[in-house]
Amino acid sequence: MRKSLVHSLVFMCLLIPLAVADWNILNQKTKRGLKISLKNYCEAWRMNVELHNIRGFEVVPEECTEYIGKYMKGTQYSVDSQRTTEECLVYVSTSCNLIKDGKDAWIFDIDDTLLSTVPYYKDNLYGGKKLNLTSLEEWMSKSKAKALDDSLKLFNALKSRGIQIILISSRREHLRSATIDNLVNVGYYGWTSLIMRAPANELVSVQKYKSDVRKQLVNNGYRIWGILGDQYSSIQGPPSSIRTFKLPNPMYYVA
Amino acid sequence: MRKSLVHSLVFMCLLIPLAVADWNILNQKTKRGLKISLKNYCEAWRMNVELHNIRGFEVVPEECTEYIGKYMKGTQYSVDSQRTTEECLVYVSTSCNLIKDGKDAWIFDIDDTLLSTVPYYKDNLYGGKKLNLTSLEEWMSKSKAKALDDSLKLFNALKSRGIQIILISSRREHLRSATIDNLVNVGYYGWTSLIMRAPANELVSVQKYKSDVRKQLVNNGYRIWGILGDQYSSIQGPPSSIRTFKLPNPMYYVA
Repeated sequence: MRKSLVHSLVFMCLLIPLAVADWNILNQKTKRGLKISLKNYCEAWRMNVELHNIRGFEVVPEECTEYIGKYMKGTQYSVDSQRTTEECLVYVSTSCNLIKDGKDAWIFDIDDTLLSTVPYYKDNLYGGKKLNLTSLEEWMSKSKAKALDDSLKLFNALKSRGIQIILISSRREHLRSATIDNLVNVGYYGWTSLIMRAPANELVSVQKYKSDVRKQLVNNGYRIWGILGDQYSSIQGPPSSIRTFKLPNPMYYVA
Repeated sequence: MRKSLVHSLVFMCLLIPLAVADWNILNQKTKRGLKISLKNYCEAWRMNVELHNIRGFEVVPEECTEYIGKYMKGTQYSVDSQRTTEECLVYVSTSCNLIKDGKDAWIFDIDDTLLSTVPYYKDNLYGGKKLNLTSLEEWMSKSKAKALDDSLKLFNALKSRGIQIILISSRREHLRSATIDNLVNVGYYGWTSLIMRAPANELVSVQKYKSDVRKQLVNNGYRIWGILGDQYSSIQGPPSSIRTFKLPNPMYYVA
């Protein structure tokens, strides 16, 4: 009797890890007989967002909001982001012949690049709810966003090398003073230029607006060594040949 | 005595999952006090390769070859790739107004897009060993590579819609007949053109070679609706505005 209890417990020991691994196997098989768990599915969704294969999504798929939430709150998002900013610094240190005449420049996006909107999206199912611009801007106007620590480290490292920091945000002009307050409060200061969307720029896509700003900067004599952003619309488009770095962001898509 | 044995076993039951989760915590903390496991580190490395933040790597970091091997052999690589090819088909079905005059075209890369080199890289630490072109070409000359099943499905779906399939590979011309044999053996046939690297094209980067071929195709009247490749050098560069899709590939980097 006791012996069989011991056996049962040993058996349970062996089963527990299996149960943990299999708890979310979807009732689904591909033609190859591949068993896909919900985690597999959501991870593939996230990877294909980051690969820019999935574009223009309005919401995170309902069944993946829990998975995306776990990723954003957990260690991996931080480690992924840290590696991205480290690569920026490796690149600047090894591949950029800075002239140091005040025309070496680096471009940063703001939201989810310098400042984290994760607390806002946490209350909106981590992207599972469709964007409500009014409520997002209300949140931004409170200037309570925290810094992404690794981005702040990079910001300071670039500044100390004499690189001009230029911020190009899709935030609208009416948020200028709230944005400046927020940036300074969490440690960002000493940038050269903060460019925000004027009403006229709201008529074009974010990608075109940001690309046009960069062209103007190049015309003004800036050498843009790199861009850091969390959206492809922050880093794609002419002028080409600028080295770009993309932070992960599976919560929303800006075209 | 028996009771304490039972208690020990229950205690062990509780410990096993913890031990499994923590086996590879690195002896390392970031300034934020973030504990990073080897898995976190290697996953961030892989993600930053796919984001094109890490470029030009010659080998997979030694400490990550086991992790990359597990990913390539496991379910996730298949699920990630399947989603990529599914997105291609969604795009063609919803966003392409095909003219069906024999000039609608789609471009595929070959290695790790149509044919899998995973068995070769398996014998080379999944990218942990520096590329030996002679041994890789010897393997290719045997025509034994398997199809990526989801790519074959996409290939056939595009073909059945009257889209011209154009293959642009960085394989060298001397592998032409071995490559054709291999493709046909695993089910690929009916492509319009197979473009391989002539000795003259070996003087430029793969990206420039592939970009030049695409420009030539456009000059010849083709409307290139999309490109599927596993390397950024297969999908980046002019002509711009072609919709691109990137399959995951953390094993090697082609510039």
